[in-house]
Amino acid sequence: MSRAYNFSAGPAILPEEVLKQAQEEMMDFEGSGMSIMECSHRGKEYSAVHEEATANFKELLNLNDDYSVLFLQGGASTQFAMIPMNLLGEGQTADYVNSGTWAGKAIKEAQNNGNVNIVADCAKDIPTRMPSNDELSLSDNAAYLHITSNETISGAQYKEFPETNAPLIADMSSDILSRPFDANKFGLIYAGAQKNLGPSGVALVIIRNDLSEQTLGHVPTIFQYKTHIANNSLFNTPPCFSIYIMMLVTRWIKKTGAENLYKQNAEKAGLIYSTIDSSEFYSGTAVPEYRSDMNITFRLPSEELEAQFIEKAAEQNLKSLKGHRSVGGVRASIYNAFPVQGVEALVSFMKDFEAKNG
Amino acid sequence: MSRAYNFSAGPAILPEEVLKQAQEEMMDFEGSGMSIMECSHRGKEYSAVHEEATANFKELLNLNDDYSVLFLQGGASTQFAMIPMNLLGEGQTADYVNSGTWAGKAIKEAQNNGNVNIVADCAKDIPTRMPSNDELSLSDNAAYLHITSNETISGAQYKEFPETNAPLIADMSSDILSRPFDANKFGLIYAGAQKNLGPSGVALVIIRNDLSEQTLGHVPTIFQYKTHIANNSLFNTPPCFSIYIMMLVTRWIKKTGAENLYKQNAEKAGLIYSTIDSSEFYSGTAVPEYRSDMNITFRLPSEELEAQFIEKAAEQNLKSLKGHRSVGGVRASIYNAFPVQGVEALVSFMKDFEAKNG
Repeated sequence: MSRAYNFSAGPAILPEEVLKQAQEEMMDFEGSGMSIMECSHRGKEYSAVHEEATANFKELLNLNDDYSVLFLQGGASTQFAMIPMNLLGEGQTADYVNSGTWAGKAIKEAQNNGNVNIVADCAKDIPTRMPSNDELSLSDNAAYLHITSNETISGAQYKEFPETNAPLIADMSSDILSRPFDANKFGLIYAGAQKNLGPSGVALVIIRNDLSEQTLGHVPTIFQYKTHIANNSLFNTPPCFSIYIMMLVTRWIKKTGAENLYKQNAEKAGLIYSTIDSSEFYSGTAVPEYRSDMNITFRLPSEELEAQFIEKAAEQNLKSLKGHRSVGGVRASIYNAFPVQGVEALVSFMKDFEAKNG
Repeated sequence: MSRAYNFSAGPAILPEEVLKQAQEEMMDFEGSGMSIMECSHRGKEYSAVHEEATANFKELLNLNDDYSVLFLQGGASTQFAMIPMNLLGEGQTADYVNSGTWAGKAIKEAQNNGNVNIVADCAKDIPTRMPSNDELSLSDNAAYLHITSNETISGAQYKEFPETNAPLIADMSSDILSRPFDANKFGLIYAGAQKNLGPSGVALVIIRNDLSEQTLGHVPTIFQYKTHIANNSLFNTPPCFSIYIMMLVTRWIKKTGAENLYKQNAEKAGLIYSTIDSSEFYSGTAVPEYRSDMNITFRLPSEELEAQFIEKAAEQNLKSLKGHRSVGGVRASIYNAFPVQGVEALVSFMKDFEAKNG
């Protein structure tokens, strides 16, 4: 068998050595005679995994002691609800940037819960982009400002985060740990694991502890951040296997060197963008200064050519290049674990395809 | 390496052939060149898994078309909150049986949300038991009656379910698919997967569709049952790997034959209970007519002997026999996947230990 170059937007490609290790120890985790899936979440085998995953995130994100690292279930979609349930008090307003599909989903849940001020709206702009910081009409005394650091569908990415007085909250599902940034400037960061961190079934939440204290008692225990902070994400049985894979991925990031990985991510994206820019056949869909390094979105001269492109690419083991069904086009998602060789193979295929059809 | 006899209460032992298959196809799921963890949740590889898991549950539980099978995140603890959020309307009362720790947790979340009537309380009874149906002080027009079919910590299990006019809701986390019962008599059944069904990170929810329609709009989208019914549990990215393992487990149950498995479960429990009953050294903690076939709880003459028993057993590869920290004693959890040979090894160890220490 040959491993596919898997451009899926998520669930997405994982580091090959992580999968190999999971495979090797599937029937017997570290001599316990049990799979990690079979180990009690309060036993010594799983506890060591949980602690290493937590410590790795603290280290990789340079978190100071004001923050907790949580592993929660329900993905980013559950965070869309938990954030206003916990942090948007009665009579308060939450500021949200509407930058696309994912921001829109977060906004919908917040509006269901309280007062929301859309501080900028570029969700329908074509080419796609993020708002500049000058454009934001911030509220006085907002409970928080919510942004989506990378829009997976449109392929637009924040390059410089807003400066605010209100706690800054970011959905980083599709670009966490893909580039350097100062996590200590945020009130809360969340990310579904299934793009840069691991398999689906777990969301990483980084929260400044003081923010969790304001939650009102009527919020169900399981949906209160303070429940999970107080219990180190072990209030109930956590998604142990997903956290185990995430631990292996963070171990792989540390071994690779986060800075090396970040540099490589920019280079991988640069290879595809320069192919687009040197061609009259391909056109990028995002404003260049907001182009995502994770999800590279582009169009061909016609939908027929796009369909052919996607089909012929798949025949060459370049899989899942179809753009999201809501926007069409082509999308190459190249998260941390996506190999440079796969990007080179795509670029080579793009040139061939253009030569034949341009 | 030798596989342990793992008596863990959950996460718990899985069928060896399920783990082997997961291991074999870890790097390449059915020739896709991708791990099932790397496959898009909307792609053909994962879709087939999702559909097979759903169909297997419908078949194994003999569900009629009034029901939906859902795969949700957050475990039974999230269901404790979602049930009253969705099904306990303003001004209504929900009936709950308090049968122990797990029922108590469900009650606490319902009380946080609305009016609760405790229809029977035997949570503190020693020996542990379930209330008889005659004991229940049911409300007129209750929104529903909630029971816990098996109390994992105390080792008490319902043998005959209550008859009610209100929709019957059961937490079956620790005994789903371990014995025959008529699922079509229930309004809602839920079960964290990590005991009888698969790894942690997914909960099975069986819901009669009409019940989902009453949910009020202020409930966050992700916590509404109708959201997940309408989207076949694909409203957001599901916990794909946990569902994949659950699919393999249900396939294994079908291959083994559910009736064979149910018969074997009763026999396995019988072997241990008859060892307890024929001894003056061991004493069961549950009233005999409510003894659990899944979690067998017993005491030795002293805590010192219990500690020795657990330690010596572990040396013979009989692992995780320690009772829950809240009650002490010994607990042997013998879910579907626990092999008869392991039960025989335990019984043999019990007899030896008694001979040496009795």
